[in-house]
Amino acid sequence: MKAAIVGATGYAGQELCGLLATHPVLEPTFPMRGRADSPAADGVGALDTARFAEVDVVFLCTPHGAAAPLARAALDSGAKVVDLSADFRLKDPAAYEAAYGGPHPAPDLLDAAVYGLSEHARGQVAGAQLIANPGCYPTAVLLGLLPALEGQLVEHGTPIIADCKSGVSGAGVAPSLTTHYGNVAENFAAYKVGEHRHAPEIHQGAGTEQVVFVPHLLPCFRGILATLYLTPIAGVNAGHVREVLEARYRDEPFVTVRSDRMPNLHDVDLTNQCHLGVADAYGQIVVVSVIDNLVKGAAGQALQNANLALGLEEGLGLA
Amino acid sequence: MKAAIVGATGYAGQELCGLLATHPVLEPTFPMRGRADSPAADGVGALDTARFAEVDVVFLCTPHGAAAPLARAALDSGAKVVDLSADFRLKDPAAYEAAYGGPHPAPDLLDAAVYGLSEHARGQVAGAQLIANPGCYPTAVLLGLLPALEGQLVEHGTPIIADCKSGVSGAGVAPSLTTHYGNVAENFAAYKVGEHRHAPEIHQGAGTEQVVFVPHLLPCFRGILATLYLTPIAGVNAGHVREVLEARYRDEPFVTVRSDRMPNLHDVDLTNQCHLGVADAYGQIVVVSVIDNLVKGAAGQALQNANLALGLEEGLGLA
Amino acid sequence: MKAAIVGATGYAGQELCGLLATHPVLEPTFPMRGRADSPAADGVGALDTARFAEVDVVFLCTPHGAAAPLARAALDSGAKVVDLSADFRLKDPAAYEAAYGGPHPAPDLLDAAVYGLSEHARGQVAGAQLIANPGCYPTAVLLGLLPALEGQLVEHGTPIIADCKSGVSGAGVAPSLTTHYGNVAENFAAYKVGEHRHAPEIHQGAGTEQVVFVPHLLPCFRGILATLYLTPIAGVNAGHVREVLEARYRDEPFVTVRSDRMPNLHDVDLTNQCHLGVADAYGQIVVVSVIDNLVKGAAGQALQNANLALGLEEGLGLA
Amino acid sequence: MKAAIVGATGYAGQELCGLLATHPVLEPTFPMRGRADSPAADGVGALDTARFAEVDVVFLCTPHGAAAPLARAALDSGAKVVDLSADFRLKDPAAYEAAYGGPHPAPDLLDAAVYGLSEHARGQVAGAQLIANPGCYPTAVLLGLLPALEGQLVEHGTPIIADCKSGVSGAGVAPSLTTHYGNVAENFAAYKVGEHRHAPEIHQGAGTEQVVFVPHLLPCFRGILATLYLTPIAGVNAGHVREVLEARYRDEPFVTVRSDRMPNLHDVDLTNQCHLGVADAYGQIVVVSVIDNLVKGAAGQALQNANLALGLEEGLGLA
Repeated sequence: MKAAIVGATGYAGQELCGLLATHPVLEPTFPMRGRADSPAADGVGALDTARFAEVDVVFLCTPHGAAAPLARAALDSGAKVVDLSADFRLKDPAAYEAAYGGPHPAPDLLDAAVYGLSEHARGQVAGAQLIANPGCYPTAVLLGLLPALEGQLVEHGTPIIADCKSGVSGAGVAPSLTTHYGNVAENFAAYKVGEHRHAPEIHQGAGTEQVVFVPHLLPCFRGILATLYLTPIAGVNAGHVREVLEARYRDEPFVTVRSDRMPNLHDVDLTNQCHLGVADAYGQIVVVSVIDNLVKGAAGQALQNANLALGLEEGLGLA
Repeated sequence: MKAAIVGATGYAGQELCGLLATHPVLEPTFPMRGRADSPAADGVGALDTARFAEVDVVFLCTPHGAAAPLARAALDSGAKVVDLSADFRLKDPAAYEAAYGGPHPAPDLLDAAVYGLSEHARGQVAGAQLIANPGCYPTAVLLGLLPALEGQLVEHGTPIIADCKSGVSGAGVAPSLTTHYGNVAENFAAYKVGEHRHAPEIHQGAGTEQVVFVPHLLPCFRGILATLYLTPIAGVNAGHVREVLEARYRDEPFVTVRSDRMPNLHDVDLTNQCHLGVADAYGQIVVVSVIDNLVKGAAGQALQNANLALGLEEGLGLA
Repeated sequence: MKAAIVGATGYAGQELCGLLATHPVLEPTFPMRGRADSPAADGVGALDTARFAEVDVVFLCTPHGAAAPLARAALDSGAKVVDLSADFRLKDPAAYEAAYGGPHPAPDLLDAAVYGLSEHARGQVAGAQLIANPGCYPTAVLLGLLPALEGQLVEHGTPIIADCKSGVSGAGVAPSLTTHYGNVAENFAAYKVGEHRHAPEIHQGAGTEQVVFVPHLLPCFRGILATLYLTPIAGVNAGHVREVLEARYRDEPFVTVRSDRMPNLHDVDLTNQCHLGVADAYGQIVVVSVIDNLVKGAAGQALQNANLALGLEEGLGLA
Repeated sequence: MKAAIVGATGYAGQELCGLLATHPVLEPTFPMRGRADSPAADGVGALDTARFAEVDVVFLCTPHGAAAPLARAALDSGAKVVDLSADFRLKDPAAYEAAYGGPHPAPDLLDAAVYGLSEHARGQVAGAQLIANPGCYPTAVLLGLLPALEGQLVEHGTPIIADCKSGVSGAGVAPSLTTHYGNVAENFAAYKVGEHRHAPEIHQGAGTEQVVFVPHLLPCFRGILATLYLTPIAGVNAGHVREVLEARYRDEPFVTVRSDRMPNLHDVDLTNQCHLGVADAYGQIVVVSVIDNLVKGAAGQALQNANLALGLEEGLGLA
């Protein structure tokens, strides 16, 4: 089987090229730039949608807005699409417009798009033509949160704090004041408090606007750690939440509920894993969720979804 | 005036030596090791409590437990004491025993000890013989939290999340697995969730056990950033909390309420400053508080307290 | 085929465990601690030389001195040995004693030991029972230097500067002042100038004491970059040295002579590759050589050597 | 006395603003942008050469080429000039043109310009109107090298290797691929081998083209470490070179010859100090020189020179 990667010069695109290089079944065709007019780069060719006809799956690693028309072209060519941009994540075009500042570029495709949080959408992903790959923060938050919500362990109407910290690769490969070494190293900051675009995605995925999502920029390259604070219903403590998480993820190859200690970024570095930890703290239940933002939070989950959609073994090419 | 520094080989002690080197009034006598039997180090002499009689103030930068008998000796010599250890922070000896694992080493001195969160205890510090210098995390949390609590802007009985992140200097100068570069760099973790010794200190300082304190280890050397989540009473938003913070700290030289953006660690690096930021986020009010953990969180606030107690200008020797 | 790893808790041992986990032929048996009395660690069992009889190859990742008796035990059990310690690198026991401060622990085995700089000892390694895996610095220096020396492009008797820089993982997993984050981050230093133990190994490998080796500690975890300065014979410039390097390494899967730019640590991160660059500079020829110190400089080259010695394809399990 | 700073938004300009903020005599007037058309920044005003008439000294922190006409304007206004750019460092306009790619912007001023390596040009600087502040690399190299050259301890005609390593602040505040955290952290590289613009400056300062200067980019923010390799004349060893360095710098407040160990970047962090170390290594003499590139390598030495030129105590405002 063959794959095309569009936007192969960004961090997610590079990571995906690396993963596909050792995939036993899915063969990458030539990696493409994200826009017809973007500068050439070593080994990355011009965007050529005609080549979508040659492949089984197209991975879109472009900025939001640019992905939707490419998705349409790929679907028309008969390829499946895994879109790593935000274009098909929000089901409500009004929510997209509010968050991304313009009308949705392809509202007619939204119904068909499947939100690909793999462990929570396996069946839908398997039959999908168009998969919206989740954002990095929503992946970390939702994997840690959904079982407790589904198990109705969280007190109705209480705030759920999602204090999230990401390595700087989440800000992309483009040089900027944000990504300058002098700004990142030995520094730390909260940013876009109350206005980050991943908030509506988390709210949609959690099925509630209770989640208070605040992102921070870590002085490191890779990884996301989300610290979640849940107000439990009466009689519930961390042990109960742990049981629910363990039961939910027992057979999942890419999610581990740690019992030894809280997880850290190194535990999941360069892997498609999500590690979870749980503890009681002064009446709240604290769930810590870590992923590699470029793998489980982007390229890895995209490949996991492609494997599912193409009928391959879900973990092929993933560690 | 003269000062003695005990425990001058640790990070707080080193920082204090650096600050005193340029202090216009307070002259450091020779820096001492923290224990009579600890190894010698460059320029740091043996512990010699007899020399306490020569000085106006003794700074104790020893581990908890070791400080209390030294404080007694210094007080008996007629010196004022600023204790950077935890020995006199908790007013309740039972709370000390629960947190620090042994009976309090000098319960008779607890009543006289003043908890030196300078901006909130200026009058008491000015007249004190024995000052308990606050912990690094409690300093960051309480400076951001107290005005909102005192202004009764926080809904009674709701959890107050204090998600805190510290540079590795907080773990001390001693080599350990925790402080190994290979464990710190490009990593991040929550630790001691629900069981950190600064939690009872924060509860005491805030006057409520509502505060849910969770510490994390940042891949950097200096600095603490605390992200506080408050449930406001009806009708209150971030603007109101900002006004209260600005009113409370308008004349404080070492606390700044930023209006341009959220503060980051670089803003306060190597200074005795605390910078605060406020924003609304999905029904919660987010207060971000940053300090340099070794300065405002340790040596700087200790010097600020010593200045106050000795009747000097509060900011002498501090930036 | 089966492998034993002794000293699996150190960085080289951990790296080797990681590589063997995906090796298609060579199966790791249980990883062992380096000494019978060393503390237990997660998933790492007691040292049990009786189990050497079960395996085809034993990897020794112990400190020098500890490896030699284990090598003898393994050889007696019929296993091949790849020793990552320094015990069999120096052919002259007097040189060992001078560098390592004690008599050689097994001088009778020295003759049989093959110095396993794979690309320069392939034939010998293929037939060896006991392979001395080269040190990390010597690997980087010798891969860049040997072709120019063999091609007689270096002026006889002139100094060859080998200014080398290593990430802190070269200092080992044990906590120490050297490896404390506060000492490593945002710092840089030369160390052991004129007295590092890898100097005699480089001299032996280069066949000359002309090489002036000076190591430095980088503020990063992995990687070695060696900057070599050669005085060329009359008429020779960087272009000639480049041609010789390219000719020598054209068919080598793990050595690349870059023509686009000087190599950096990221080029070889987590791989068994050595990248080389060449340029003229004010009469000297500068050769830059980079490796991942834990892979090509330790575990990776050890596996490359084991593959050769066991008659397997040389690159199995290596990237 | 009053000072103007032009180019106050770059790293050197920011550093100089910080130093002047606590200078007891020299008062900064308003900091200016480097070009009339450059974007405004917090607290940094428009370039206004008319204000040069108000000040005693003008610090030029602009890019090369932009400084020369500003220097002329300042001199015409009667101010002294310390130029931190490269415009007046090379005495030979042809060398400038070769290195900087265009004709010299003010060749008539070259004769009057003094090359301000403070410890080696004190007398000239004291009487100068126009001071060319040395480059960061040349400062580190020449302070370590000149005494041995002047003492004729180096074998005539032999190469002097200057293997230099700099923190990323040397690449400036502008975002670029070079300064992106993802390119800097956990990485290391040689760059501009044989073609860096500081090479002719070093050759001029050393009075010989023997010096083989190769720069490298460190994964840290501040600091330069230069490792110098000297071929001694017969009978000379590191002890002799050390004696010469100590004799030369005994009374210098900003240069220290360490006898305890080799210096590292932390030794001089945020100071105007240069620390030197010396050792023998296999027939070569190794001199290690470290400075903070933004202080002794830029703003600090500029202030030292301004103090000298204005008849103030040389070390005012410097640590």
